[in-house]
Amino acid sequence: MKLATLKAGGRDGTLVVVSRDLSLCQRVPAIARTLQAALDDWHTSAPQLEAVYLQLNAAGSAGNISAAEPFLEADCHSPLPRAYQWADGSAYINHVELVRKARGAELPASFYTDPLMYQGGSDRFVGPRDPIAVLDEGWGIDLEAEVAVITGDVPMGVDAAACAGAIRLVMLVNDVSLRNLIPGELAKGFGFFQAKPASAFSPVAVTPDELGAAWHDSKLHLPLQVTLNRHAFGKPNAGDDMTFNFAQLVAHAARTRELAAGTIIGSGTVSNKQGGLHGSSIEHGGVGYCCLAEVRMYETIEQGSPSTPFLRYGDTVRIEMLDNAGASIFGAIEQAVAPYQRSI
Amino acid sequence: MKLATLKAGGRDGTLVVVSRDLSLCQRVPAIARTLQAALDDWHTSAPQLEAVYLQLNAAGSAGNISAAEPFLEADCHSPLPRAYQWADGSAYINHVELVRKARGAELPASFYTDPLMYQGGSDRFVGPRDPIAVLDEGWGIDLEAEVAVITGDVPMGVDAAACAGAIRLVMLVNDVSLRNLIPGELAKGFGFFQAKPASAFSPVAVTPDELGAAWHDSKLHLPLQVTLNRHAFGKPNAGDDMTFNFAQLVAHAARTRELAAGTIIGSGTVSNKQGGLHGSSIEHGGVGYCCLAEVRMYETIEQGSPSTPFLRYGDTVRIEMLDNAGASIFGAIEQAVAPYQRSI
Repeated sequence: MKLATLKAGGRDGTLVVVSRDLSLCQRVPAIARTLQAALDDWHTSAPQLEAVYLQLNAAGSAGNISAAEPFLEADCHSPLPRAYQWADGSAYINHVELVRKARGAELPASFYTDPLMYQGGSDRFVGPRDPIAVLDEGWGIDLEAEVAVITGDVPMGVDAAACAGAIRLVMLVNDVSLRNLIPGELAKGFGFFQAKPASAFSPVAVTPDELGAAWHDSKLHLPLQVTLNRHAFGKPNAGDDMTFNFAQLVAHAARTRELAAGTIIGSGTVSNKQGGLHGSSIEHGGVGYCCLAEVRMYETIEQGSPSTPFLRYGDTVRIEMLDNAGASIFGAIEQAVAPYQRSI
Repeated sequence: MKLATLKAGGRDGTLVVVSRDLSLCQRVPAIARTLQAALDDWHTSAPQLEAVYLQLNAAGSAGNISAAEPFLEADCHSPLPRAYQWADGSAYINHVELVRKARGAELPASFYTDPLMYQGGSDRFVGPRDPIAVLDEGWGIDLEAEVAVITGDVPMGVDAAACAGAIRLVMLVNDVSLRNLIPGELAKGFGFFQAKPASAFSPVAVTPDELGAAWHDSKLHLPLQVTLNRHAFGKPNAGDDMTFNFAQLVAHAARTRELAAGTIIGSGTVSNKQGGLHGSSIEHGGVGYCCLAEVRMYETIEQGSPSTPFLRYGDTVRIEMLDNAGASIFGAIEQAVAPYQRSI
């Protein structure tokens, strides 16, 4: 099934069930007012939400559900407008290899067996059509197109097989990074903080069964479409070159502590292995990139320095994934970079 | 005023107003069912909660409030059983200086002007009387006794003066660390994750005004009492040697993103400057320590290697703060280390 959160109704928004074709939605206050509430009691709520989903799909074509309303992606917040946990892995090691290669460093062998993961801020995500609001254009604003999952409760120390079954929902994310703040912050030793402003998630989150054959081995085997200022920028397959699958990432997060329902675990920037700068861009026949840093690393490795600039005010980013029939699965993240306007 | 959360009533518990002397409490479902709900709408809820607090204190001595019930710290969860953000600073630079000195490294000058802060897990805190549950006794289990604040909404990029006014509540925290996992994790460059299991907070959170003269310059000027296996272990003054006050820590967190109401910001391990190993322990006339790592660093610096062991199963930790009249302000965190028992 497909779920989304409308911006109406307070900080956590209003949960709706969305039809498969993203044309209709239905509020479900008798089942759960918010997605977090549904996740808190998933074993009870999921079958009831599923029943609404089936009705919505069946009747949608006949146009005869009075409780349904048109679904507009522009009305959506991120599926969880705020969450109790957002932890982002870096499962596409190709991306990490390029980072290291660009600065002439070796990749430790442990990176192939022990996932990288950072704890992100989750108190205030932005909606999929909200601006990427920054105070300083010079901070090196970059997109990071990724896949993310939302888990149920996960006990401490369980293995990846158990974690696979705890994956409740799948969605897309734009994990915005402020690249020019990263070196100073990592040098301090405590990881990212200011370099990671608020992330935005796709309008719709879907259950793994909804993905059919595209979801197997706890990976999502479809191209992630990234558009930059209306030009195709990336289309790597999220199922390729993913060194750690989502079950392994969840198990990593749960090694020393329990994870509570509603925990979001990200894949890290999707990245496929390509030969080099020539041929890796979409216009030269490659699969392109899911962040600007990646093309800048190719440029650094081959040309000595990066030439592609980071995002500036007014630039637009679109992130979407289509099924094999060309239909949007999660709706689109579509954000423009803008100067921060105080809202709270 | 003083607020606490009883374990009854679901994942977020039940908000109660607590009398100043911690003898009575009162549920306030007509105002807010949970502390997060109160924080989400603080300008409305705070005056109403304050009115209950005044009644409770006045009538407590007369024993004539029917809605009041005895307050038992053992019934409490952490004030926010789960939170949307928990970010922990390292404001007592003495602690960081010792860490560096013990490994023969210099402290960068920027550490005195740019706070260290890491993003912690907040999806599932443990209660103040719950065990420190770990899977492996060999992970180097350490307490970290700290002060923490809960903020309201904070706009992006505001200065410390504005942040001072956004501090809603003050509490204590035991930020448990798994010391033997830290070196490997920090070497990966993404900061702490597995090295930081679930934290526990004091039974009671209090508004800054409740602290009177002990709260000024956005610091809490009272000794933090730490007891290890029923022996006094630390009593450093949390107002001394705090290089960054809470307003500055909040401003650091808000530099590139908005902070949502209910954000918890920690001070880092409280640590006062002392001469060295001899004389720094309480039994030798010092103020002692708020974590085992600190005495181990003195031992390393002066004796070549640490001799004080980390915590083992069965060890107990108590963290409390008394006002100038000797009364407990926040109630006590009192935890025993225990093997993890699956509960979810």
